[in-house]
Amino acid sequence: MKKNIGAINALYPMPVVLVGTVVDGKPNYITIAHVGIIDMETISISTNKTHYSNKGIKEQKTLSINFPTEDMVVETDYVGIFSGSKVDKTQIFESFYGELKTAPMIKKSPLSMECEVVDIYDTPNYDIFLVKPKNTYCNDEVLTDGLLDYKKIKPMMFDMPTRRYWKLGEAFAQCWSIGKEYKE
Amino acid sequence: MKKNIGAINALYPMPVVLVGTVVDGKPNYITIAHVGIIDMETISISTNKTHYSNKGIKEQKTLSINFPTEDMVVETDYVGIFSGSKVDKTQIFESFYGELKTAPMIKKSPLSMECEVVDIYDTPNYDIFLVKPKNTYCNDEVLTDGLLDYKKIKPMMFDMPTRRYWKLGEAFAQCWSIGKEYKE
Repeated sequence: MKKNIGAINALYPMPVVLVGTVVDGKPNYITIAHVGIIDMETISISTNKTHYSNKGIKEQKTLSINFPTEDMVVETDYVGIFSGSKVDKTQIFESFYGELKTAPMIKKSPLSMECEVVDIYDTPNYDIFLVKPKNTYCNDEVLTDGLLDYKKIKPMMFDMPTRRYWKLGEAFAQCWSIGKEYKE
Repeated sequence: MKKNIGAINALYPMPVVLVGTVVDGKPNYITIAHVGIIDMETISISTNKTHYSNKGIKEQKTLSINFPTEDMVVETDYVGIFSGSKVDKTQIFESFYGELKTAPMIKKSPLSMECEVVDIYDTPNYDIFLVKPKNTYCNDEVLTDGLLDYKKIKPMMFDMPTRRYWKLGEAFAQCWSIGKEYKE
């Protein structure tokens, strides 16, 4: 039995990331799950225009995308609740910098990308930053045979309807492969 | 030890969806994991310009977003491997239509959104369709206390580095809540 529950955006779960930028000379991080993939080299990051980070991203034209692991959930959620305009977030995470210099990354995060902003898609209430990763940093131990292994990264996923964080489950099939078993 | 693995788009895992449209008068579906959230009401769907579906989406200015469950993995992957220009996809899934009339949805899918295209963000090789859900249809049994429950929906997630499909794991924390336990 199909039920129409109205005009609900149900595109979840989405990966949770910590977006880093420099605002007023200091590293700042914000928690974002409204992300997307534009093409193979381009990512979208949607942040409400009221956010403190947007000013820094527009000034620096850089940002970082850091993956919190499951065991960083308290800090990650904290960063999502409180604005950098009200609380000092410089001490929550130890930062490191790469080639871009103005995209602080989180040492504790197993996977970080430093990105250049290539465009901003403007909407009335949100800045959609379109960014290209320039360098991707990871801890050795999240690689399997040289490839990023999300089971080891332990990403956090988010859904808006129940506002929960989820763990990633098991890999269960190979893409562009299992479909060949299909029979009409 | 941090390792720089280069300019890698590592924004995964992403939810896998089946995008429905009418092409040349027939329902057609394509598998997409390069999706995103633009704002609370708007979703992005990125499809390579070579895809058969793009013509239909541009003509109809509608599309549907359907969630395959784990047990639809073979059909879902099949639809992602073979183009609707080469194989007839009308018989793979039984379709139903809603208010928009030109956005075929998949009966077997526990969660479907019929959407209007509100903009196309153009890139050299990809059409990024920005769409707003008009109606969201789900099976009664994927609701818990009236809310979409992704544990019951059993979405498929995808990562590009290892090209695998993943199951969703357990919900383990409440967003905008657990962060209040943070102590400096």
